[in-house]
Amino acid sequence: MNENRTFPEQEGRRRVVIENITPEIDAGRFAIKRVGGERVVVEADIFTDGHDSLAAVLKFRAAENAEWAESPMEFLVNDRWRGEFAVTKLGNYFYTIEAWVDQFKSWQINLQKKIEAGQNNISIELQIGAKWIEAAARRATARDAENLLAWAKEFGAVESVTGSPIEKRALDKDLTDMTCHYLGRQFSTNYEKELRVIVDPELARFCAWYEMFPRSFGGFKGCEEQLPRIAKMGFDVLYLPPIHPIGKLFRKGKNNNVKCEPGEPGSPWAIGSSEGGHKAIHPELGTLADFRNLIARAKEFKIEIALDIAFQCAPDHPYIREHPEWFRKRPDGSIQYAENPPKKYQDIVPFDLECDDWKNLWLELKSIFEFWIGHGVKIFRVDNPHTKTFAFWEWCIGELKAKNPELIFLAEAFTRPKSMYRLAKLGFTQSYNYFPWRNSKDELENYFAELTQSPVAEFFRPNLWPNTPDILTQFLQTDGRAAFAIRLILAATLGASYGIYSPAFELCENQPRGPGEEEYLNSEKYEIKRWNLSSPDSLENLIARVNQIRRENPALQSNRNLKFHRT
Amino acid sequence: MNENRTFPEQEGRRRVVIENITPEIDAGRFAIKRVGGERVVVEADIFTDGHDSLAAVLKFRAAENAEWAESPMEFLVNDRWRGEFAVTKLGNYFYTIEAWVDQFKSWQINLQKKIEAGQNNISIELQIGAKWIEAAARRATARDAENLLAWAKEFGAVESVTGSPIEKRALDKDLTDMTCHYLGRQFSTNYEKELRVIVDPELARFCAWYEMFPRSFGGFKGCEEQLPRIAKMGFDVLYLPPIHPIGKLFRKGKNNNVKCEPGEPGSPWAIGSSEGGHKAIHPELGTLADFRNLIARAKEFKIEIALDIAFQCAPDHPYIREHPEWFRKRPDGSIQYAENPPKKYQDIVPFDLECDDWKNLWLELKSIFEFWIGHGVKIFRVDNPHTKTFAFWEWCIGELKAKNPELIFLAEAFTRPKSMYRLAKLGFTQSYNYFPWRNSKDELENYFAELTQSPVAEFFRPNLWPNTPDILTQFLQTDGRAAFAIRLILAATLGASYGIYSPAFELCENQPRGPGEEEYLNSEKYEIKRWNLSSPDSLENLIARVNQIRRENPALQSNRNLKFHRT
Repeated sequence: MNENRTFPEQEGRRRVVIENITPEIDAGRFAIKRVGGERVVVEADIFTDGHDSLAAVLKFRAAENAEWAESPMEFLVNDRWRGEFAVTKLGNYFYTIEAWVDQFKSWQINLQKKIEAGQNNISIELQIGAKWIEAAARRATARDAENLLAWAKEFGAVESVTGSPIEKRALDKDLTDMTCHYLGRQFSTNYEKELRVIVDPELARFCAWYEMFPRSFGGFKGCEEQLPRIAKMGFDVLYLPPIHPIGKLFRKGKNNNVKCEPGEPGSPWAIGSSEGGHKAIHPELGTLADFRNLIARAKEFKIEIALDIAFQCAPDHPYIREHPEWFRKRPDGSIQYAENPPKKYQDIVPFDLECDDWKNLWLELKSIFEFWIGHGVKIFRVDNPHTKTFAFWEWCIGELKAKNPELIFLAEAFTRPKSMYRLAKLGFTQSYNYFPWRNSKDELENYFAELTQSPVAEFFRPNLWPNTPDILTQFLQTDGRAAFAIRLILAATLGASYGIYSPAFELCENQPRGPGEEEYLNSEKYEIKRWNLSSPDSLENLIARVNQIRRENPALQSNRNLKFHRT
Repeated sequence: MNENRTFPEQEGRRRVVIENITPEIDAGRFAIKRVGGERVVVEADIFTDGHDSLAAVLKFRAAENAEWAESPMEFLVNDRWRGEFAVTKLGNYFYTIEAWVDQFKSWQINLQKKIEAGQNNISIELQIGAKWIEAAARRATARDAENLLAWAKEFGAVESVTGSPIEKRALDKDLTDMTCHYLGRQFSTNYEKELRVIVDPELARFCAWYEMFPRSFGGFKGCEEQLPRIAKMGFDVLYLPPIHPIGKLFRKGKNNNVKCEPGEPGSPWAIGSSEGGHKAIHPELGTLADFRNLIARAKEFKIEIALDIAFQCAPDHPYIREHPEWFRKRPDGSIQYAENPPKKYQDIVPFDLECDDWKNLWLELKSIFEFWIGHGVKIFRVDNPHTKTFAFWEWCIGELKAKNPELIFLAEAFTRPKSMYRLAKLGFTQSYNYFPWRNSKDELENYFAELTQSPVAEFFRPNLWPNTPDILTQFLQTDGRAAFAIRLILAATLGASYGIYSPAFELCENQPRGPGEEEYLNSEKYEIKRWNLSSPDSLENLIARVNQIRRENPALQSNRNLKFHRT
């Protein structure tokens, strides 16, 4: 007969099909996410032709070249199988499935059916079983082989089912285990992909963030003084807006005024001046040593410090002089500031991630993270990641987490849904989301059903913020203290992670810059505030109580525990 | 700066993401199906970072190494894009997507936004546009370059928007087309997969099958006599159960009796005897020449002959003597007959597709199709494909259709849903399905919603049979002629392809072998029937009318036109 050019040499006798694995994100292109101690429950459609019985194992390992560990998969219904494993180590796990025709179990089931159908003479059927047992014995240790051959001999001698406990004997567990073990996995099918799990630290799953402008408290030392109060309220993360020198060129004044009066501090997101850039500290906040002290002191209160990483420059940032090739020049030689017409950010210049020197730019941006990691920072809130090349984030976060799997990256991805989810797939640990604008029961149920009951739940961890320095929602503007209490409780109970921009939040600050706007009047972004923390209206006690309830209720500590149904 | 081992050299400046393409079956592992003249509508999420405008094209070709043709994709909403192309040629088409940042359109939109925002001095913005036009001119033909440079000069000279028609000029269609054309697709993203379309003949989409045992009509010549009647009823396909010599060993008698009286004909599915096997014709049906005559005569009536391919052997099939290695032997040396306890098929022996000589067995099985293709058969109804290795079908159908894209394979896949769908993915053109047992409104709506409104519709074409020689449903047993009329109309209108086992069907034959059974009493499988075609109860006229309505209503001619909603 003719040779055939596309003969499936390897696959021809692999009779088992494995398909429709869950979880599997974008055909395995992206990882799912877990934290240490969580389980990964894997399901798949596993089936073969005809009526044979199958066996399947879930294979997993904590490194790409490690030995596979295995856990058995169980048949559910309608050719669906399920298995699970626990992840314990931070970093990457991998999983896949192996399945094969279980010849001995197929024989057992066939024998049972024949006995049930009333077939009396089963000597040939028992001899078939004996042949499988003998095949197993040929691969067994001497001792096991002896046992197996005794079984084979017994089955070979039985003539009929009458008065014989042979059915029970043929299903004996030791016999089954031993025979299946030595028969092995002939012609087994290995699922064609290795799927990945990113295992993050516990805080990635369950955390409460407190955002605070250090300059309104006199810098890092002032922040230290706030630690007991923040800890008492029950927060795990203290997040600081950018702590770097602020540009002086085109600095914004109070209420985003394009004119800045002398002495006005400017926006912390307009990063860089002659005093330094993304690796420097604003002199009015303290020194690098003060910052390290704050981190150390926070740890005593079980609080992690999160830094804001905003990849953009004030016009007087040192990069602009040192690396003009990293910025987009206009025909008049000037450098293009950030804008999204009609909005203009004259105090901010974006990087040109498409520039010819993009590789060095990417390496430099990554080195900013590395600098702060070197000084003890483990959590980063990333400003507007959706305005930078997607491929940059996959590479940058991938590289950083390969060395530091304990890192957490929160994406300020207030953007369209596809981009928001893509950033989570690319590696961001948590993400801002549409919670601030979901108010009605329907809106909340439908949105949280999407976040918790769709495949999104496997890679996207929402962090719920009722307010931010940029967002004073209409809802918060209308009903005073009650509105803040409502949004606090929703944020703290609809998701396992939430945060508030404060003390504006606990002090129920609700004056917008103008009607229909979401900007704060006299926003802390452009001025130093002196907050009256002892206000009788403060939500401090309510917040403390809510965080206590969260700590006491495991159901509130994982988004996977929270079930919503679309209406 | 340090080199980095995993730097995304190629992808770093490819800023556009293409994901969530539909249709795409199992991450591109399998093809979708169309017939010549149909359209393929492709959608995808396509987006980039920031606010730039995109362009995207759907690329398609009718052979793996052909030049790509392109059709533009249009933006829908929420980062979703759509494009389409028509398939005309039988065989395989391939499609994929290319998308890129459209720098010139981004500039146009940015300019518009600035003008709308009231910015008056736009000279710098116009100079930026002039730079893009100049870049295009550098790659243009001399004549186009001249035109482009004139545009660039014009924009470079404008100072402000006041009183100038510049916005309209900047959006000029010729300018846009020419500039975009010459700027090209810098850093474009090509979707990582080529997706496949199998283009089948028209009959794969829309057909009516008539199944008939030739022996009950005196063989092929008797079939010829029936052609005018079958054509008048409006059928496209005349499907014959196996036409090969029938085994004499263990031949079944009337009503599946294990004892066969002399002269009883046996089941046509018990294939092979000393008179020949799968490539021979039962002498009582006629000669190979008679068979070819039937095909030719049927063509005159626009009827295709479909053959039944059942990969199994009677115990006296020549293969068993010539290739004992292709069958499973029992410890007593006998060959195992087919069974699914308590059912026994003593007159049938299955092939062992796992045997050591499996490759030669596969080639021989494929050669059976090739033999009949050589004699003019283009449509095959495949018996019980789910009891043969899945990989066999993908290889066999793939090889056959590569040479003969006009072939149609109907899978008799009365099996579990996952296997049924898998066989369709692997290459079967159409499939039997659960229609016979879906009776209530809810059952029908939910099932046909699954078949027509889920991704299943892209690869699975149901062929609806109210009865078969194996299936006389409970529904048909109860209400006489009315029940048959109901199931006929449902079959003919719920799907674009349907078939009836006849004349049992049009004669409303409804006697089961026993209560609760679906087997016919005195089934034609085991005896030669003499049908009274002139019965006054015959549904012949109704069938003719129904088929006429189908031919007159395009809405009934494609499953994609039929819309059902789950209840």
